[in-house]
Amino acid sequence: MTDQEQAGPDAASSEPPAREGVIELLGLVSYASLMAFFRLAEDASLAPSVPDRADLAGVAATQFGHFALLRDHIAGLGVDPQQAMQPFVEPIDAFHARTAPSDWLEGLIKAYVGDGIAADFFRVTARLLDEPSRTVVLSVLADSGQAQFAITRVRDAIAADPAVAGRLALWARRIVGEALSQAQRVAAEREPLAQLLAGRSPAQLGEIGRMFAELTDAHVQRMARLGLAD
Amino acid sequence: MTDQEQAGPDAASSEPPAREGVIELLGLVSYASLMAFFRLAEDASLAPSVPDRADLAGVAATQFGHFALLRDHIAGLGVDPQQAMQPFVEPIDAFHARTAPSDWLEGLIKAYVGDGIAADFFRVTARLLDEPSRTVVLSVLADSGQAQFAITRVRDAIAADPAVAGRLALWARRIVGEALSQAQRVAAEREPLAQLLAGRSPAQLGEIGRMFAELTDAHVQRMARLGLAD
Repeated sequence: MTDQEQAGPDAASSEPPAREGVIELLGLVSYASLMAFFRLAEDASLAPSVPDRADLAGVAATQFGHFALLRDHIAGLGVDPQQAMQPFVEPIDAFHARTAPSDWLEGLIKAYVGDGIAADFFRVTARLLDEPSRTVVLSVLADSGQAQFAITRVRDAIAADPAVAGRLALWARRIVGEALSQAQRVAAEREPLAQLLAGRSPAQLGEIGRMFAELTDAHVQRMARLGLAD
Repeated sequence: MTDQEQAGPDAASSEPPAREGVIELLGLVSYASLMAFFRLAEDASLAPSVPDRADLAGVAATQFGHFALLRDHIAGLGVDPQQAMQPFVEPIDAFHARTAPSDWLEGLIKAYVGDGIAADFFRVTARLLDEPSRTVVLSVLADSGQAQFAITRVRDAIAADPAVAGRLALWARRIVGEALSQAQRVAAEREPLAQLLAGRSPAQLGEIGRMFAELTDAHVQRMARLGLAD
């Protein structure tokens, strides 16, 4: 559990990741997936038609699949999934409470932005894990991108009424801001997770900051694909 | 489309079912599955713990899988799924509006009763369909029974406080009553579906009544397994 104490920065790549940090990471992404399921299912009620509503429900159902896979994997490691998720209940619930969409377009953007950031985060963290956790996280990554259908609809809405672009760009920025703010809080409070994310670098905060910057860059590119400047 | 007009009761089993009735049946069960997804996801918020909530979310996600399969099958038959579902939006929404659970136990019972009646209905209707619709409906049936976990929890709740049994029995009766009432309405309004369900018998109402009686008998048996008298 404390092998990172002996490990200098040079030894980092050859040492297996500390189990405690891995469990925290898995607990975080499993609770995030479960809540994404509930929020997407709820936000789908904002849809203007049954097929639109069903499309967002499909993103939700995929998130439940991620959750179930991660939960079973945690249990297979001999850890109670509820205990692993517990530290992340409050920050993730707070994130959703502060980013409840008020209409269908805001719901679409939240789904697209959230799905995208989650996929980027899975991609970055998978390389920090050892097997079998790495394979589980990569399999979750494989069916992300479900929210791609949002692009056409948001672009159509902006074409029909260019004035919405400004409001939606602000909305997307708020979602990312809230996500980063909760992520900073989690990184500050959960030392094993922070050590895992920083790859045991002595410049832990700097490493985590660089990871957040990478996620933000990818987000800005996604915004451009939506036709929104960040 | 009107081959049932020439078919006497003896010819019923050798004639293929009328396409219009099949589309209506598929539209009905796909919209029912989609709404079951949304309502179960919402009712899960009544759960006392994260694992309980996740279990009900699992039943919801399964319902979405049913919906997606049925929707794609309808589209494959060259019919717009939204149009096929449209006639059933009002009765199914009315059913849910009148059976919104007020606590976790009521939510569990609705999931268990609903899952059970749906499975029975799929079993009964599959034999009325020709291929490939029959296989689709049977595959949906194969992973029903997800709500079985409700049995232990309801039994435990009754053991802890026998007074809840009466209230829950009334609640279950109300769910079935509402379901049958909406089903009667659908059967009266949708002639092609009614003809399909009655197997083209000239005694259509009698045949449909017998089907409902069969579903009710199976429900009474499920109630006994929950430790509730009907």
